[in-house]
Amino acid sequence: MNTLLLDSDDVNEHARMSAVIDAIEQAFGAFERGTTQMPAKSYIDLPQYNGDFRSMPAYLDTGDWDAAGLKWVNVHPDNPADHDLPTVLGTMIYSDPETAIPLAIMDGTALTMKRTGAAAAVATDYLAVEDASSLGLIGAGVQSYTQLEAISEIRPIEEVVVSDPDEERVQRFVETYEDRFDIRSGSISEAGHCDVCSTVTPVEDPIVGRSDVGEHTHINAMGADAEGKHELHDELLDAARIVIDDHEQCTHSGEINVPYHEGVLTDADIHGEIGEVVVGSKAGRTEETGVTVFDSTGLAIQDVAAARVVYETAREDGAGTDFGLIDTDQ
Amino acid sequence: MNTLLLDSDDVNEHARMSAVIDAIEQAFGAFERGTTQMPAKSYIDLPQYNGDFRSMPAYLDTGDWDAAGLKWVNVHPDNPADHDLPTVLGTMIYSDPETAIPLAIMDGTALTMKRTGAAAAVATDYLAVEDASSLGLIGAGVQSYTQLEAISEIRPIEEVVVSDPDEERVQRFVETYEDRFDIRSGSISEAGHCDVCSTVTPVEDPIVGRSDVGEHTHINAMGADAEGKHELHDELLDAARIVIDDHEQCTHSGEINVPYHEGVLTDADIHGEIGEVVVGSKAGRTEETGVTVFDSTGLAIQDVAAARVVYETAREDGAGTDFGLIDTDQ
Repeated sequence: MNTLLLDSDDVNEHARMSAVIDAIEQAFGAFERGTTQMPAKSYIDLPQYNGDFRSMPAYLDTGDWDAAGLKWVNVHPDNPADHDLPTVLGTMIYSDPETAIPLAIMDGTALTMKRTGAAAAVATDYLAVEDASSLGLIGAGVQSYTQLEAISEIRPIEEVVVSDPDEERVQRFVETYEDRFDIRSGSISEAGHCDVCSTVTPVEDPIVGRSDVGEHTHINAMGADAEGKHELHDELLDAARIVIDDHEQCTHSGEINVPYHEGVLTDADIHGEIGEVVVGSKAGRTEETGVTVFDSTGLAIQDVAAARVVYETAREDGAGTDFGLIDTDQ
Repeated sequence: MNTLLLDSDDVNEHARMSAVIDAIEQAFGAFERGTTQMPAKSYIDLPQYNGDFRSMPAYLDTGDWDAAGLKWVNVHPDNPADHDLPTVLGTMIYSDPETAIPLAIMDGTALTMKRTGAAAAVATDYLAVEDASSLGLIGAGVQSYTQLEAISEIRPIEEVVVSDPDEERVQRFVETYEDRFDIRSGSISEAGHCDVCSTVTPVEDPIVGRSDVGEHTHINAMGADAEGKHELHDELLDAARIVIDDHEQCTHSGEINVPYHEGVLTDADIHGEIGEVVVGSKAGRTEETGVTVFDSTGLAIQDVAAARVVYETAREDGAGTDFGLIDTDQ
């Protein structure tokens, strides 16, 4: 029995965004209903290389379908300067839960970007104003692209403002999308006054204040993925309806981790988890809601759900490379 | 940058046993010296499929070399009857610890057999009589083959006795090795009276008693890999010098797990870990030593150490299939 190998081009082509968003929404719902298994990430810390590895296994059952797999991913911040390699590299094994056959092995880096964009889109769907037509992007790195691609799937985005101190990055981003959107470079405050704003930076000192965003802006805080990271000023978090993806991960390494550990932000300030909003046990945006914030750390079930879309679509299209990795003779 | 894909034939060909034994011995030594990282196995339990998945990440630094990787493995006992598939399927990702590049992805099932055989060989080297020339095998399933292949690397094995109620399995095993060894079918007691005896069965009710083994037999108890499994009678364990691979794993799911939880066997009955024997902080066999037992559960560092041998050897030989799985452009 063959395993389907899918490189980054295969993943990008077959992670059709509308399907991935749908899968991620179902994954969040399953998480809330308790039909997922997601053991805590296992870390291997390698200070001698200034890096770490993380093992992210997961299973989910949405009622309509189930799926299992594992992402093996790392963070090696010296890679770009020392080895001309990306900081983060991921490998995803997508397995049949019934037999454990590895159905596919795919580039986990491309997959991570797709599922992260899709998570922001799901949150935006529940938390942004219905007619949102403008999107601000704070940070123009690799993750910004899927923010725009995913969010524009679920809101009629026309105007895009991108803010990044790196002019070259902004230029590259603008050129990529200028045919499809009314897109321009702008300040943090201009990006923050859009109907939806995604922050996709690695900062540890907050860069977005209360006055930098509109009265009804929905913010996807995507950047914080480690202790100490923090993009939004406390008074902005204090004023916002905060929705998180997972309590343990967010208080440990999400946007809220710093104020949570300082005691400035408590559980009472957290509106709920995105799964609760998806299944309807917590409200999304209502007429009275002002600023909303989605704190996204990224869940292993998102990788598995997105991998399923990629695998199923690639199989249908006859794409990828079949390889007899596993000897299935008894 | 390409990832080297290695199927089961590639793994079997390039997991040269003498090199794997050496790597496993070094891995056990590193484990004792504390230069390994091995987060607890993460389990995903799927009772609806009578199966589970296990994630086994690890890093080790032997002083001479270091290596990192992860094995994603399962146990699905209904696979043979329901799906004509093996119970256990494994996928191994072997990664460069410095950059996290996935250097190789290989069949983890073949790898597991090799590293398990090699672990028995390392234990046999320290615990069996020097001139051991006979090997008993209790159980003639897939794992038995690498027991013979590995142990005959480090002792001058001439005579082999194989004991299994399944005549067909015995026949297949005998035919495989009759050109190289004086090999015959025999009773449990005949196998147990060899100089070295490996038990490789899935039983929960012990099948090897005190009188079934010789006065100086070294036993590799390889079969127990889950709670409740138990191959050797308590009075045999009580009489033996017991060496384990890892205290946590062995007391949870190794040969000693049942008597340990019943309180029949305590920490005082455990001579030490194999790593302690390898580095010399605990004695191996001495002139006074009678029966010895090695309780092997299998450590994630064994997989990584064996994967390194396979990868390095295959690269040297120009074997395997190069595939550009990961996009390493920035």
